[in-house]
Amino acid sequence: QSSLTVFGVMDAGVSHYSTKSRSWGGTPARQVTQSQTVLSPSGYASSRLGFRGTEDLGGGLAAGFWLEAPLANDTGGGIANFGRRSTLSLSGPFGELRLGRDYTASFWNDAVFDPFSVNGVGTNLVAVVNSNIAASRALATGGLLNGGLSAGTDSYLRTSNAVSYFLPPGLGGFYGQVQYAFHENVKTSGTTDSPSGRGRYAGARVGWASGPADVALAYGESTLVSAAPAGEKIKSLNLGGSYDFGAVKVFGEWSSVRDARDNAGLFGTRSTDRYDGFVAGVNMPVGPGVIRASFARVNFKNGNGLPNSDASVDKLALGYVHNLSRRTALYATVARIGIRNGHNNPTVMGVTPLVVSLPAIFPQAAYVTTGGMEPRSAIGYDFGIRHAF
Amino acid sequence: QSSLTVFGVMDAGVSHYSTKSRSWGGTPARQVTQSQTVLSPSGYASSRLGFRGTEDLGGGLAAGFWLEAPLANDTGGGIANFGRRSTLSLSGPFGELRLGRDYTASFWNDAVFDPFSVNGVGTNLVAVVNSNIAASRALATGGLLNGGLSAGTDSYLRTSNAVSYFLPPGLGGFYGQVQYAFHENVKTSGTTDSPSGRGRYAGARVGWASGPADVALAYGESTLVSAAPAGEKIKSLNLGGSYDFGAVKVFGEWSSVRDARDNAGLFGTRSTDRYDGFVAGVNMPVGPGVIRASFARVNFKNGNGLPNSDASVDKLALGYVHNLSRRTALYATVARIGIRNGHNNPTVMGVTPLVVSLPAIFPQAAYVTTGGMEPRSAIGYDFGIRHAF
Amino acid sequence: QSSLTVFGVMDAGVSHYSTKSRSWGGTPARQVTQSQTVLSPSGYASSRLGFRGTEDLGGGLAAGFWLEAPLANDTGGGIANFGRRSTLSLSGPFGELRLGRDYTASFWNDAVFDPFSVNGVGTNLVAVVNSNIAASRALATGGLLNGGLSAGTDSYLRTSNAVSYFLPPGLGGFYGQVQYAFHENVKTSGTTDSPSGRGRYAGARVGWASGPADVALAYGESTLVSAAPAGEKIKSLNLGGSYDFGAVKVFGEWSSVRDARDNAGLFGTRSTDRYDGFVAGVNMPVGPGVIRASFARVNFKNGNGLPNSDASVDKLALGYVHNLSRRTALYATVARIGIRNGHNNPTVMGVTPLVVSLPAIFPQAAYVTTGGMEPRSAIGYDFGIRHAF
Repeated sequence: QSSLTVFGVMDAGVSHYSTKSRSWGGTPARQVTQSQTVLSPSGYASSRLGFRGTEDLGGGLAAGFWLEAPLANDTGGGIANFGRRSTLSLSGPFGELRLGRDYTASFWNDAVFDPFSVNGVGTNLVAVVNSNIAASRALATGGLLNGGLSAGTDSYLRTSNAVSYFLPPGLGGFYGQVQYAFHENVKTSGTTDSPSGRGRYAGARVGWASGPADVALAYGESTLVSAAPAGEKIKSLNLGGSYDFGAVKVFGEWSSVRDARDNAGLFGTRSTDRYDGFVAGVNMPVGPGVIRASFARVNFKNGNGLPNSDASVDKLALGYVHNLSRRTALYATVARIGIRNGHNNPTVMGVTPLVVSLPAIFPQAAYVTTGGMEPRSAIGYDFGIRHAF
Repeated sequence: QSSLTVFGVMDAGVSHYSTKSRSWGGTPARQVTQSQTVLSPSGYASSRLGFRGTEDLGGGLAAGFWLEAPLANDTGGGIANFGRRSTLSLSGPFGELRLGRDYTASFWNDAVFDPFSVNGVGTNLVAVVNSNIAASRALATGGLLNGGLSAGTDSYLRTSNAVSYFLPPGLGGFYGQVQYAFHENVKTSGTTDSPSGRGRYAGARVGWASGPADVALAYGESTLVSAAPAGEKIKSLNLGGSYDFGAVKVFGEWSSVRDARDNAGLFGTRSTDRYDGFVAGVNMPVGPGVIRASFARVNFKNGNGLPNSDASVDKLALGYVHNLSRRTALYATVARIGIRNGHNNPTVMGVTPLVVSLPAIFPQAAYVTTGGMEPRSAIGYDFGIRHAF
Repeated sequence: QSSLTVFGVMDAGVSHYSTKSRSWGGTPARQVTQSQTVLSPSGYASSRLGFRGTEDLGGGLAAGFWLEAPLANDTGGGIANFGRRSTLSLSGPFGELRLGRDYTASFWNDAVFDPFSVNGVGTNLVAVVNSNIAASRALATGGLLNGGLSAGTDSYLRTSNAVSYFLPPGLGGFYGQVQYAFHENVKTSGTTDSPSGRGRYAGARVGWASGPADVALAYGESTLVSAAPAGEKIKSLNLGGSYDFGAVKVFGEWSSVRDARDNAGLFGTRSTDRYDGFVAGVNMPVGPGVIRASFARVNFKNGNGLPNSDASVDKLALGYVHNLSRRTALYATVARIGIRNGHNNPTVMGVTPLVVSLPAIFPQAAYVTTGGMEPRSAIGYDFGIRHAF
């Protein structure tokens, strides 16, 4: 007897992306613009196809599963992976035990308190920058789904091989989660630094929601290298909240991410890169639609101690969603990004208007960062349709 | 709330393929036969698994989606891609706007007016030859689903990244479609021939159907290279029709495809290869079954202007489908191909009995085309079962 | 009109694996332990997602299809293949004709008469050793789903490109199956040993089930090389049975596998490696749960005729399944493996506690087999949840 729901989202639109790079330091000033127009998926909500179900086991106990695949619906991408979520749960009065691949505990605030729900050109700048860190620090080997930090944005957005515990509802509005993801590396007897902790994730999130208010604090730690003398961890701390005034719902998030390295040099000292950011914005209902706006900034402080080695990036996004029904909507979004001293960290700070999950889906206009050029600004537009089923 | 339909086709059978190659020009005459017997999918209808749904938005408006994956059910191929169709639609009194991956506007006539519905050894010869052109002119890089002309039969059969508009029903039997597929290439300022148009598709189709009659004209243009002085486009023009006399339904299609190149040589002139073909055939109901037959020819005229550089290929196909129910049928088909002067263009004109989509699914008996050999003839049989669900 | 069922299993748990290797022959004695802890899928039942359906065609005839994909739910693996089963059937009073990818006829006894249902650390040792043979003798080229013996455990557990016939029910408890899988290789005229038989599988199984008793005999033959003078086949013969006494259900299987080679040397003689094994065990209901236990042994006799070139392996497994409902259960299993003279055939006899299908899913603790070391023993634990839907 089957008891499952097949569900999903199809979101397609036309997007235009444009990036501007400029020379710095030298003369004369040069500038290069790169742009493209694409048929884009997921401009308002992530295209997906999933299977889920629950079973009432009596006594307040329930079992449930959730399999959710991303869809690259512009090019006919299939469901070769349930990379968005693949979990088995046992829940009861004690809360929920959840096993498998899921959002990290420390990513939820980036998503829940983003006026643009981490999709399309308006995507939370904090999420984009920090996904860039995760991707740039990942090793070349191993795929997105290999668990842990192997590649892509894993361990910042999502993690494989995770065991999570969620508090039950009914605690006066308090909610919370702790999560641990196995590194799964092999321990060999008589070998130093075995097993490697690479790929391990540990995190937690606590929040309080009541009536129009919602606020949550989260922390997560990903191990990139555990062997002495060159350990490296990415640590993420963030606090987010929203308040629904009725005429307008306001959102805000503050985020602090550390890339902490135990340097291996002769006078090796701990060196830590810091990425501190925030996003603030609103959703304002207007008839059958919603106006959305956000402003965000992330500051990069280089851990090398040298002067003038920092950078920063700003993002301003404005959009409108027109609901044709609860399931179907038209949307338009425009966003502008400005970057200062991007040459100090072009890989992470040279963010494009694209959403965090899209680089793997289609080619994108990047910045020119060689020949004395640095990323300066970017503009993006999305026009599309979202249909949930 | 889910509102989708899961649907599909499973088609499996046993097929035998045999190809004959002969030496040409020199002496003594030599001949090589290659053959194989396989468990084959899709001999009568393409094996597939899909998800689709529609939502009534009121006022005549509707949203709909369609995700359809090919199934290599002989070897357990899964739904790693929705390469057959992946679209999101908004339709209303104005017609239908459709976004995503779909048949090209110019391929429909090959399928609709083929007595064998472009499946199995009886497949429309026009579709096979022209898919060979698309595959042979595609660059080695990029996958089938990468959009545009990157590889395989893309841009002839199907295209990714497309925006289509369909006329609404109720126009006195007239129907029609225009389609544009983005190339998605990056434009870089200050760079000649940027962006490349490679991968762009544009096409249209108009037709009229009333009672027993149906006729349609289509044109499509795919850009392979857009940079001067060596542009190249594949242009496809075809006209098809069918008429149902009751005792027999007759089909016909005429097709003309051009591979047009702006040559880059010193006295570079435009050089155009021409592929002109037709298919004609019948479907004749006999009790619970249908007898199917078709004859087709494609002539290749080499654009290089040299004498004796042309080739041609014929195909005769005969089959019977025995319906056990509306959803399940047994079928048998036999087809014979004859090739003249195949050494002039063995890659395109050396067609085997296989259907257009199968080369990617299982190994096939090919022709010997080295050592002074040319493709001469091929025979194929299919015996199988088709079950729709 | 759709008439299909979406079904599946999600099984997730935490497993620990540990292997011990020891030096042999030389001095001094050395020992290496390798271990890992993982989030594991399929500890009690194989995680899967499938689509199946049947159609009543009248007159006792029916059509049916079955598509079943494995799920690596710990890391979000998707349904890129229906590698577990992909079949189309026509059944009636005559029995069932089944086309596609499926279990081999000769594997069923390994599964049906295993107290641990070939899943988790308790998996039937006979199945593990023989899958190791299939994997180690497969060529490097070709994927798991390529049909025949191309790679992995294909042709022992499952086969692609198969035609099967099953006896109908109602024959006084007798049941049976014959199966042939096409090699699909191309035959080239005038070429010796063409086509190659490599990838061909042929097998049969007959059994009798009545009331508490069930017994079956099976034989299968896979062709690895068919060309003279170095042909090679893997031949599998097994007999299994179970008897349900009510308070306890007993299981037993005897298996004999031959790796038979026509050697190509000057005095080339037929050389045959022999793998003879058995498994015996019980399932004992205890309230809402079941205690499971099994003991198994496989002996390897090297066909080279040299003294002291044999090896053997034992496995003892104990487990408990606690059913929360018909669909959901908690389980725990522990298993210990002991290996004698493993250096004589470490690839095949150096089995770990893992189930047969897992090597492809996650990294595993292997034995050290270089530097004079041989596999000696292994221990594994599974704790998890299985949920069927």
